[in-house]
Amino acid sequence: MSNAIRIMGIDPGLRHTGWAVIESQGNSLRFIDAGTVRSDSKADLASRLCQLHDGLASVLHEHQPEEAAVEATFVNKDATATLKLGQARGIAMLVPARAGLRVAEYAPNAVKKAVIGVGHGDKKQISMMVRVLMPKARFDTEHAADAIAIAICHAHHRQSVTSRLALETLK
Amino acid sequence: MSNAIRIMGIDPGLRHTGWAVIESQGNSLRFIDAGTVRSDSKADLASRLCQLHDGLASVLHEHQPEEAAVEATFVNKDATATLKLGQARGIAMLVPARAGLRVAEYAPNAVKKAVIGVGHGDKKQISMMVRVLMPKARFDTEHAADAIAIAICHAHHRQSVTSRLALETLK
Repeated sequence: MSNAIRIMGIDPGLRHTGWAVIESQGNSLRFIDAGTVRSDSKADLASRLCQLHDGLASVLHEHQPEEAAVEATFVNKDATATLKLGQARGIAMLVPARAGLRVAEYAPNAVKKAVIGVGHGDKKQISMMVRVLMPKARFDTEHAADAIAIAICHAHHRQSVTSRLALETLK
Repeated sequence: MSNAIRIMGIDPGLRHTGWAVIESQGNSLRFIDAGTVRSDSKADLASRLCQLHDGLASVLHEHQPEEAAVEATFVNKDATATLKLGQARGIAMLVPARAGLRVAEYAPNAVKKAVIGVGHGDKKQISMMVRVLMPKARFDTEHAADAIAIAICHAHHRQSVTSRLALETLK
């Protein structure tokens, strides 16, 4: 019997950072909580990064996840948007890492594949499939739904890594 | 008589983050210290961000600056490089902000103008002019020299803001 592992998924963004905590045990997944950390767009950048930091730190404190996963997003817009996302993403990775969690990164198509079954699809499809895969999931925004998808993706991948390690040990 | 203010300049980068602490009193500037925080390029991204965080936090702890300034850099390379820079920059702004410092941002041409006198010039010119403006300055890398230039830029701008506020008060 494998023990339940709490996974935190994070969909970083300067304005809205989605987060989700799920539990993975064997083949079953259980929804714990999800939400969105917002930063005040009228505040200066440094304060906004503090707001994201504090919001994520309080989720970690409340739900005590053991592993974290963040999407390795690429923005195809301008450099300014990419820089903004990078700043938010830096905070999203720092907070769990400082708490001692391993932080995995997944490409967007890996996340989509984990929930939709194929490596492409839009945000609405992700939300819809999250509802199908995890009927008890509650999320306030698409960012939170994305964070659930990222956590599910990690649950699938970490398990296959664990299985491979288990097989290695059996040899 | 205005009091001396300790300013921390930061030139963020994932591999090398330059930092500098100077003191500004009236029209005079005094060099305190400068250096480079490095992250281990073989480590995973989350660990590297922790290394930058811890390095900058220890500089803040040691030198107790009262204000911080970060360059608002834009990378004209690819989106991957911009995202990397953004991540490092997020940490560079978060650390002083969490310590209660105001974090100012300056465009690269403002920083160049403050030390070279014009809004363009290369890294070598910045290092050279930093040596001229602050002969006692010691820096181990161009990143640290850039951080000194950013701190000097803030010393100039904060003073003019203070003067304007003083004039406003006199009206």
